[in-house]
Amino acid sequence: MSSFSITLAYDGTDYVGWQRQASGTSIQGLIEDALRELDGRDVTVTGAGRTDAGVHALGQVAAFSLVRTIDTTTLVRALNAHLPQDVRVWSAAEVAETFHPRFDARSKSYRYRLWNGDVVNPFERRYVWHVIGALNVEAMDEAARMLEGTHDFAAFQGTGSDAKTTTRTVFGSRVVRARHPPHHTPQTAVVDYEVCGDGFLRHMVRAIVGSLVEVGRGRREPAWIREVLASRSRALAGDTAPPHGLALTAVRYEDAACG
Amino acid sequence: MSSFSITLAYDGTDYVGWQRQASGTSIQGLIEDALRELDGRDVTVTGAGRTDAGVHALGQVAAFSLVRTIDTTTLVRALNAHLPQDVRVWSAAEVAETFHPRFDARSKSYRYRLWNGDVVNPFERRYVWHVIGALNVEAMDEAARMLEGTHDFAAFQGTGSDAKTTTRTVFGSRVVRARHPPHHTPQTAVVDYEVCGDGFLRHMVRAIVGSLVEVGRGRREPAWIREVLASRSRALAGDTAPPHGLALTAVRYEDAACG
Repeated sequence: MSSFSITLAYDGTDYVGWQRQASGTSIQGLIEDALRELDGRDVTVTGAGRTDAGVHALGQVAAFSLVRTIDTTTLVRALNAHLPQDVRVWSAAEVAETFHPRFDARSKSYRYRLWNGDVVNPFERRYVWHVIGALNVEAMDEAARMLEGTHDFAAFQGTGSDAKTTTRTVFGSRVVRARHPPHHTPQTAVVDYEVCGDGFLRHMVRAIVGSLVEVGRGRREPAWIREVLASRSRALAGDTAPPHGLALTAVRYEDAACG
Repeated sequence: MSSFSITLAYDGTDYVGWQRQASGTSIQGLIEDALRELDGRDVTVTGAGRTDAGVHALGQVAAFSLVRTIDTTTLVRALNAHLPQDVRVWSAAEVAETFHPRFDARSKSYRYRLWNGDVVNPFERRYVWHVIGALNVEAMDEAARMLEGTHDFAAFQGTGSDAKTTTRTVFGSRVVRARHPPHHTPQTAVVDYEVCGDGFLRHMVRAIVGSLVEVGRGRREPAWIREVLASRSRALAGDTAPPHGLALTAVRYEDAACG
């Protein structure tokens, strides 16, 4: 048996999320199906981040063991030959049998993309949340930075979570305007929330984004986010932002330092 | 009656092209349907570039006349409210009744995007042609520049064209590596052919790209493109590149200068 990790990207639009579900196509299921073909047996795949339905990934990491002897270049090619074009494996590496992509991760990064212009670029439509009405990006960034550090993030946890503790450490939490907006797009239109931490609760990034948008619209002062955090009450935070603006961008194992 | 021009973008993946066809959905048809709702009568829409099935646009220009009095902001909103999300109107302007988006255009720009890496980014998959095997981008650029100037482009014209003359002036013709490649993408992976000219024959950009790829693969020397051009024979040029890598990026009316 050899164990492998793979780094992969997917357009989550048409999937029920990372994890296998009773119905619908999951990313985990697609990879397990491809590996069953390859290894002639059932293979269990573990992912670093359990992305929800509609959430994307640019740098998800997954791991599995194979009976068959295979080099990593052939493994990448074989997986991509089996997978649909909206799921692509960037690379593979041999890892220790004990490697666990979620438990061993030192940090993860997510990006949530808001479209704050009148007209959404049709080439970006699947990957942004269209927020109408001007946003105060500076106020949003001020609020976002207040979430850096080790906190109890219970106020930003969705229902149906099985997390043992709601304390997480956020290394970086920033709201920025995209540096290279696409064609016909004013620079103010693309607003990214970039967050990096040692782990995230269910719906945590999306609940933070919903709250930051309240600040951006001027309905709340930036310092309100601290009150929400201290309350540990989901009812106080903003609505959960829709899934399609979210992407898991990176998972790090050597060093937690956010890129 | 007032006449308007609109600038629009579309993801051409799911459409039969700009022009109305006997079957399938066209961009022209979608806009005409939206304007019929708006103006309570049949409206004819003329486009600057007749993009083929699967070809995209970032800055197509179209024109039409309306009986109803409407300001341009309301017109943009009303059109976007009727159109599907993969077709978006950026802006509208009042124009002279005599304005013709194709005949009055001083220059048009197209971009053809090649993906020259092992793995295609899933977020770009609809907008690139995946070319496997290393391309010599410098040789391609050398060949591309030989097409600049006024030439008879008959060798690069597809069949079924009704063009009266096959002479066109190409102001700029370059092959470049994308400056800002997406995540997990080596800078060598994204190769753009950028061309600007006073007009283009049917399939001309795609036939040029097919020929440039022959040069990039080392099957032909850059100077071969001059022989193809001089031959005026379609049989000598490379294959027609697939439509989904192509996008009409801009149409200019005041000044032909390419952006």
